[in-house]
Amino acid sequence: MNRGGLADTMAALGAAARKAQRALGVSPHARRQAALGAAARELRARAADILAANAADLAAAGDRPAAFRDRLALDPARIAAMADGLEAIAARPDPLGVVDQAWRREDGLAFERVRVPLGVIAVIFESRPNVAADAAGLCLKAGNAVILRGGSESRRSVAAILEAVRAGIAEAGLPADAVQPVPTQDRAAVGHLLTMTEHVDLLIPRGGRSLVERVAAESRVPVLGHLMGLNHCYVHAGADRDMAVRIVVNAKMRRPGICGATETLLVDRAVADSHLPAIAAALAEAGCRLRGDPAARAIAPTMEPAAAGDWDTEWLDAVIGVRVVAGLDEALAHITAHGSGHTEAIITGDAAAAARFLDEVDAAIVLHNASTQFADGGEFGFGAEIGIATGRIHARGPVGAEHLTSYKYRVRGNGHVRP
Amino acid sequence: MNRGGLADTMAALGAAARKAQRALGVSPHARRQAALGAAARELRARAADILAANAADLAAAGDRPAAFRDRLALDPARIAAMADGLEAIAARPDPLGVVDQAWRREDGLAFERVRVPLGVIAVIFESRPNVAADAAGLCLKAGNAVILRGGSESRRSVAAILEAVRAGIAEAGLPADAVQPVPTQDRAAVGHLLTMTEHVDLLIPRGGRSLVERVAAESRVPVLGHLMGLNHCYVHAGADRDMAVRIVVNAKMRRPGICGATETLLVDRAVADSHLPAIAAALAEAGCRLRGDPAARAIAPTMEPAAAGDWDTEWLDAVIGVRVVAGLDEALAHITAHGSGHTEAIITGDAAAAARFLDEVDAAIVLHNASTQFADGGEFGFGAEIGIATGRIHARGPVGAEHLTSYKYRVRGNGHVRP
Repeated sequence: MNRGGLADTMAALGAAARKAQRALGVSPHARRQAALGAAARELRARAADILAANAADLAAAGDRPAAFRDRLALDPARIAAMADGLEAIAARPDPLGVVDQAWRREDGLAFERVRVPLGVIAVIFESRPNVAADAAGLCLKAGNAVILRGGSESRRSVAAILEAVRAGIAEAGLPADAVQPVPTQDRAAVGHLLTMTEHVDLLIPRGGRSLVERVAAESRVPVLGHLMGLNHCYVHAGADRDMAVRIVVNAKMRRPGICGATETLLVDRAVADSHLPAIAAALAEAGCRLRGDPAARAIAPTMEPAAAGDWDTEWLDAVIGVRVVAGLDEALAHITAHGSGHTEAIITGDAAAAARFLDEVDAAIVLHNASTQFADGGEFGFGAEIGIATGRIHARGPVGAEHLTSYKYRVRGNGHVRP
Repeated sequence: MNRGGLADTMAALGAAARKAQRALGVSPHARRQAALGAAARELRARAADILAANAADLAAAGDRPAAFRDRLALDPARIAAMADGLEAIAARPDPLGVVDQAWRREDGLAFERVRVPLGVIAVIFESRPNVAADAAGLCLKAGNAVILRGGSESRRSVAAILEAVRAGIAEAGLPADAVQPVPTQDRAAVGHLLTMTEHVDLLIPRGGRSLVERVAAESRVPVLGHLMGLNHCYVHAGADRDMAVRIVVNAKMRRPGICGATETLLVDRAVADSHLPAIAAALAEAGCRLRGDPAARAIAPTMEPAAAGDWDTEWLDAVIGVRVVAGLDEALAHITAHGSGHTEAIITGDAAAAARFLDEVDAAIVLHNASTQFADGGEFGFGAEIGIATGRIHARGPVGAEHLTSYKYRVRGNGHVRP
């Protein structure tokens, strides 16, 4: 496609999204719920078509690594899970119209702050085609139009999924253009999305670090992104040993590759002798490589030596760094220096230490006596998530439909003028 | 200053802000209140020094227009107002530590969403030196460090004001570097602020449209900006005539130059004959020029003819565009096409029409039977405002201390692991 043609295509896409959003944004919740339900039915009804499209994507992906192909692959269970996800989103309360503040002045002027849609959201994602259904469902729920751009490897699958979703929206009497795929794989299309400030209100990149960094570096549209989950489990002097073993093993090894996985274990010197051998043995038994600082290796000599860069490494794998710290202050300083502000956990029976950790650690999610793997919108009860935001602006942590809203103020007077 | 020197200066400023914010962010509210109170006292105690600095700024501004010099000028009353503002900010409730959501899962895992500081905020502003005190006070209240960059025309005044504020912060035992002026007027310093993503979490431009547009176009840091207030008063068929006259005159003429001023008047055809002559006469008597469409001029022939571009013009002056519309649908369409999403008002006794207007108009502030000039953080009861945000991300409308916060999730378990 030539440049002018692409610019026109993208502008038309944006204008159609804006127009569809205006209708969607004032639609009753029952109609948005009906659209989500119909989209779920269409996904199930078109499962064979979607699987055929996915088979074509997989054939084209030929010699890519197994993990890549697994992320790309759909099967009947994954399609059913997408449909179930849309129904779960439908079942949750309406995030729009919620009055989250209300007050009245002495002169009778009455104020309400009410939740409204954000507008038009662009989602740029990689690999997993099911992201398309989740993202479309969450945007739809909150009255937002969405423009989706998946990776070229999943383009046939994503197109088939979004056709089903669009059919469901139309069946419910809402504009199908509330959900639109970018109709070309031209890489320059992403550049347009990043600069279409007139047509796009928020950009959500969902994928690897290079995608998120490119979007953050180039976007003129506000970005809600997820950069890194360099998370810690801190075993405080007051920790129960068995609980520490159970939580640390789960936090690292339940799924080592997710952003909520623990990457570094900090252990108080006071309990290193008593707790660390059991934790290290359980991690090793679960298949985890341990890389310890000298104090940790003095207690558990089977650990590999940690390198200086380990404390800043997001392994996303069955590897953990282990460091012995003098106490709460040193643990807090380590997390301040090396944490990514995603998810941090303390394990302790000491309420004062826990309170200080939860107050002072600056991260989207801080946990006491629970695994970092709870960092997930589903676990938080949001029905689904479009990602986990690691910035501080607009939304932080798991992002569900309610976080894809803005607000406005309704002010009611009786002829009030300002003196 | 050479480029390397400037980069080092700005990086040091950012690092000092980050360090100061860490201490400020975990400080008790009483200490932040003490700092605000001490800053107010220091402003009053140093009034003579601040006025001397301001006199030097005014002397340097020599031949600038009177309106420019008025914005720049301080007097004892304006200094007292700054000090009063800091005390008003101090008196409001703590925006930090507020638990705005809390829930518990069936398995006992307990979630809380709690307000925390945003981090480091950079404020770039023009002309009015008192913005420095308001912005510093609001940031301090919410536990944020702030870096301020005023215009070169006010640099002596701003430096004197911020020295007073910094002295107050230090007296309260908090780090003075929580509030820092950019120590150079080198224009390249602004470029650094816009790209210091490691050290700055949010950028707030406060000034004219060219400043806000430059910041929006170039910033790599998230921006909370105010673009334009192209606001409408819509006199619906159900409006009381006297109320319409009173509100429209106030909305336009109380202060025509503020962003909450009305720029266009829409009048329903059904009441144009009965209401428009009285409104037009009252506006004209108050000194306002009227520019009407043909239907309006047929009723009030003394109006100038409106030009096509009028509906997209933010006059910020004693000028108003006047258009007769067929009814609510046409008024909504006009506002959708020409409004800037700032502040919109309907005047009517018809509750259903008012409800539809308040629901369907997409603006930060929508009013029923009240003047658009209420678009102000002080009028909303926020104590002060750092500006009015016209975007949809993070905060919308008047921005007070509570909007300069983020949140985190505290999660408390008892050995919970994720299945």
